[in-house]
Amino acid sequence: MKTVSTTLNGFDLEAIENTVTALKGNPKIAEFKFKATNKWESGPRNTSQIQGFYGACQEDRTRESPFVCSTDMPTVLNGTDVAPSPPEFLLHTLASCITTSMMLLASANGIGVDEVTVKVEGDLNLNGFLGLDSCILKEYEQIKVSIDVGGDLSFVERMKLLELAKKSPIYNTILNPVPVKIALSA
Amino acid sequence: MKTVSTTLNGFDLEAIENTVTALKGNPKIAEFKFKATNKWESGPRNTSQIQGFYGACQEDRTRESPFVCSTDMPTVLNGTDVAPSPPEFLLHTLASCITTSMMLLASANGIGVDEVTVKVEGDLNLNGFLGLDSCILKEYEQIKVSIDVGGDLSFVERMKLLELAKKSPIYNTILNPVPVKIALSA
Repeated sequence: MKTVSTTLNGFDLEAIENTVTALKGNPKIAEFKFKATNKWESGPRNTSQIQGFYGACQEDRTRESPFVCSTDMPTVLNGTDVAPSPPEFLLHTLASCITTSMMLLASANGIGVDEVTVKVEGDLNLNGFLGLDSCILKEYEQIKVSIDVGGDLSFVERMKLLELAKKSPIYNTILNPVPVKIALSA
Repeated sequence: MKTVSTTLNGFDLEAIENTVTALKGNPKIAEFKFKATNKWESGPRNTSQIQGFYGACQEDRTRESPFVCSTDMPTVLNGTDVAPSPPEFLLHTLASCITTSMMLLASANGIGVDEVTVKVEGDLNLNGFLGLDSCILKEYEQIKVSIDVGGDLSFVERMKLLELAKKSPIYNTILNPVPVKIALSA
């Protein structure tokens, strides 16, 4: 028996279809718990390891070694600038999630796209974090996302892509309040 | 004339002092605009470049080349698992910002710390993103942060460290709603 795999935008449409069918049969498959562990090194330098997670009703142990992400601060903010700063990592995270979410859902909707560039910029006033002005927010004040899509796309398809981009979990995590419990370990 | 540089937790206390003095003289120095540009590759793989930013009243052009961050999805989510997923990057971003923020402010408060480990885990139900259940949120449902600090610390100092950790800009960005404007480029 010959199996024909059909891909769109680099996504295997049969695999997406199978995943959706499985989720409809058992919604618990979609409950994920992601994890990261960060260790301080010195000054503004620290490194996270990302390896295991829970999903599809089991602990995932397929990764043989962890992904490693290092963080620093720019020299103008008293860092050594050997890695991106946390606020910059947030913008990468947002941009990458918008790209991935939009392209996965575009594929499921039969929309072929040739190129995508997502530019993100965010305003952060450090007087809030530093406690120098209690009227200034500690968080990003606002973030702007500009999505450039290339391909033979109708106006309706372009509007659909924007609608799909807004389904991004990280876009929604930043846009909406999310409960974060923070505690010292015992 | 001899200059003695005093460091605590790897932070140059004189540099922190000078930064705070400069900010009090001209609060506009603290207004930062960070940036990232993400390009889609294929399927769930894409890569961000992080280089310039605005801060300290000027465009920063000190980085000779961009930082590069790649994103993928785990195999169980139809990816090729060559890089962390966007939801995992968010947890790294949060953990690293909590570490950096806490340690910078601890240093400014004269608290010496030997070791810090920040563990983060977050619950994300993909039925929300996929539109399979309209009652389920698209964003992270909740995130838990556990901070382990090592050193000769009093109870009061440990409580102070927790208070300082909560000043993290990314913690506040996730905890609070942040306006995100998203549009297709013209």
